[in-house]
Amino acid sequence: MNFERIIMGIDPGTNVMGYGILGVNGKKPELIVMGVIQLNRFESHYLRLARIYERVSGLVQQYLPDELAIEAPFFGKNVQSMLKLGRAQGVAMAAALARDIPITEYPPLNIKKAVTGNGQASKEQVANMLKHLLGIPDDKMPALLDATDALAAALTHFYESGKPSLPTGPKSWKDFLAKNPDRLAPRRK
Amino acid sequence: MNFERIIMGIDPGTNVMGYGILGVNGKKPELIVMGVIQLNRFESHYLRLARIYERVSGLVQQYLPDELAIEAPFFGKNVQSMLKLGRAQGVAMAAALARDIPITEYPPLNIKKAVTGNGQASKEQVANMLKHLLGIPDDKMPALLDATDALAAALTHFYESGKPSLPTGPKSWKDFLAKNPDRLAPRRK
Repeated sequence: MNFERIIMGIDPGTNVMGYGILGVNGKKPELIVMGVIQLNRFESHYLRLARIYERVSGLVQQYLPDELAIEAPFFGKNVQSMLKLGRAQGVAMAAALARDIPITEYPPLNIKKAVTGNGQASKEQVANMLKHLLGIPDDKMPALLDATDALAAALTHFYESGKPSLPTGPKSWKDFLAKNPDRLAPRRK
Repeated sequence: MNFERIIMGIDPGTNVMGYGILGVNGKKPELIVMGVIQLNRFESHYLRLARIYERVSGLVQQYLPDELAIEAPFFGKNVQSMLKLGRAQGVAMAAALARDIPITEYPPLNIKKAVTGNGQASKEQVANMLKHLLGIPDDKMPALLDATDALAAALTHFYESGKPSLPTGPKSWKDFLAKNPDRLAPRRK
């Protein structure tokens, strides 16, 4: 199946990382694949980071997404866990940056709101709404809701990028460059 | 000049990222190159991350380091800035992970102690000691001390890796794997 546009969503965590990939033709988004990257079994922080990089790079290579949407909580528990979460996010983002794929972040509240209409929706409600909106059969629904959270980030990006301007959250890199061509660093050699 | 071993040090920051690369023959470490990656002029967080990935990947490709040492503060200001620092570190680490280069982190105190004998040494003292230890001529000393901090991380790694066991700080990925072969994930396909 060919798609005009492929959007990859990621829900980055240090224990489980969810991913969901949407294909879009015209105005119709469709599920391509979703799943999770299990990190629990690796004790070492480095092994987890290496695993994230390996798997996200593999997904990027296999599905060739045009855009990456990340669920990004902006406030967290403590500085130590935020540093670890930042690293996990950074490693996943690098897999996209390596291929010049623009990244957009969405806070969890915006994703829940975009998908269900309610910023306080539960993960189960988000999953059920995705099932309904994308016509996902029961046997394709994942056991872990990190996958549906990631898919929700991708769908939010699809909705938001159709709007005339992104109302909330940080803008993408591509968007920034488009608006600030003078900021483009001259290519070295 | 050929070296038996090349160690790259990084002092990751979100405004300036320092790097320093040491070549080792026998027990003699030697400066190959050091410098900084300026990130200040990029307003967007994404552009900074993209720049870090691009530059660190370029350095890895050019100098082919065998090991990466990172100066890693474990506690910081607030959760927001730690998330950003974590991302900057993650993106730099990914450039090494992409080539299976093992990473070791050292807290700033351990680096200062290893290089100067004093965990409370100033950045200037660290720079002067590096100049002395590695015989760096005046005109090769950098204007920004992020570069010498990075080189100090590389030198610390050289010292520490010669010891029978790493006494402090987290162990490297390679080290972890060597001690826990059963933890090695089976290669997919």
